[in-house]
Amino acid sequence: MLIVKVGGGADINLQGVAADLADLDTPAVVVHGANALRDEVAERMGTPKTVITSVSGYASVFSDAPAIDAILMSYSGLRNKRLVELCQRCGVNAVGLTGLDGAMVRGERNKGIRVREGGKNLIKRDFSGKPRAANESLLRLLLDAGYTPVLTIPIVDEKGFAINSENDDIVNVLQEALNAEKIVQLIEAPGYLADADDPASVISAMSRDEVAMREAQVEGRIKRKLMALRRLLDSGAAEVIMADGRTEHPIRDALAGRGTIIR
Amino acid sequence: MLIVKVGGGADINLQGVAADLADLDTPAVVVHGANALRDEVAERMGTPKTVITSVSGYASVFSDAPAIDAILMSYSGLRNKRLVELCQRCGVNAVGLTGLDGAMVRGERNKGIRVREGGKNLIKRDFSGKPRAANESLLRLLLDAGYTPVLTIPIVDEKGFAINSENDDIVNVLQEALNAEKIVQLIEAPGYLADADDPASVISAMSRDEVAMREAQVEGRIKRKLMALRRLLDSGAAEVIMADGRTEHPIRDALAGRGTIIR
Repeated sequence: MLIVKVGGGADINLQGVAADLADLDTPAVVVHGANALRDEVAERMGTPKTVITSVSGYASVFSDAPAIDAILMSYSGLRNKRLVELCQRCGVNAVGLTGLDGAMVRGERNKGIRVREGGKNLIKRDFSGKPRAANESLLRLLLDAGYTPVLTIPIVDEKGFAINSENDDIVNVLQEALNAEKIVQLIEAPGYLADADDPASVISAMSRDEVAMREAQVEGRIKRKLMALRRLLDSGAAEVIMADGRTEHPIRDALAGRGTIIR
Repeated sequence: MLIVKVGGGADINLQGVAADLADLDTPAVVVHGANALRDEVAERMGTPKTVITSVSGYASVFSDAPAIDAILMSYSGLRNKRLVELCQRCGVNAVGLTGLDGAMVRGERNKGIRVREGGKNLIKRDFSGKPRAANESLLRLLLDAGYTPVLTIPIVDEKGFAINSENDDIVNVLQEALNAEKIVQLIEAPGYLADADDPASVISAMSRDEVAMREAQVEGRIKRKLMALRRLLDSGAAEVIMADGRTEHPIRDALAGRGTIIR
């Protein structure tokens, strides 16, 4: 079993991903992003993303109803189905699903963010949250029948609402359900970079302890990525491979050892 | 078994549809449109629909790549997932799928339309076609496990491409696979109207022969609708109910005999 996380950047070679899926000799579950596309769609629809800042100074994207609409159009609609189409053209019988479909990924909605507006402290609640469990029986039903699940946001909350969530966290609950031997993460870089500005600084291998060490040394988005990586290993993944999603054969290259192997 | 076709107009009560699905005592498959939404999304995205006229004078919407993108955003993304969300909120474990997903609806791509451009006759080929078969095994897999399939366009062609298709024709191949006892069609009218401009002219019941007779008397879109109805009966449907999708309980009302019963 293989889990493939496909980044949401504009330069990921989706055609190569589909072609490589056709060549695999193990079942796979795909999770993909679409953040570049989402920003473009939201802009064109006249609902650009809004960022709010909490009283403690933490900035985050606010997932209001129009933001979820933009996710549904870009992640669940355009990107998911075009990727499924590429798979179908390569003979991979892909089934594109969001976390809403069959409650594939259940989550817990965030309680809200404390903000200061007009001289008052308010709680602003959006449609976002943390995934808690994947629907293992639906995954097995599809995999056992020869289908390749291609998953994306939104996920479903306790009350059935569509909520935004981090793909890294979704991969985590999928791993808890599927116990995949390998997890491939396709990004717009040749691997994990020691220096984010230097593509030649790829670290070819990291242990769990090195991941934890680096996690303690950095801040922000990279810290969250490293924490997600560490958790994947803690969830029982034997190997996580961060590799370049822009090459001709992104999955094949990753499995051949290009990129960063974490184990 | 019940097939529910939900029209793509702006005034259909989707919340009522979801609530009624929760109350059914028989499995159901839903097929929905989103044409009003599609036109709005395409307009906002800067790719309004284009109509081409064949040399024989027949006008049709041209489904080029941007038109399929608009379908993916509106039908497959926004409308499909918001309807799945409404179902999840009512306790219906809906799974939203296009005809691409698991090759749920296979079709045959149209060969092209002969047009006259710049003094020459050309064949213009778009991404559209006719559905030929539904994936009965995937439908049964989901239904037997307690899921409610919620289907929409696009469908998949012989080569794996996403193609546009008529929902009436999709309902037809679903009926061939599922052999449903009843098919409910929810529209933005109180039923089949003898006079399209008079909502009070609902015909409460029609036989197959009456459908065929009316079909011979009219032209255009209504003729295609009647032909689709007649074919459904010929495919073994015991009863087709055309009913108002704008009421508080659209499916319940239809099953209670409101609208037009065709058998």
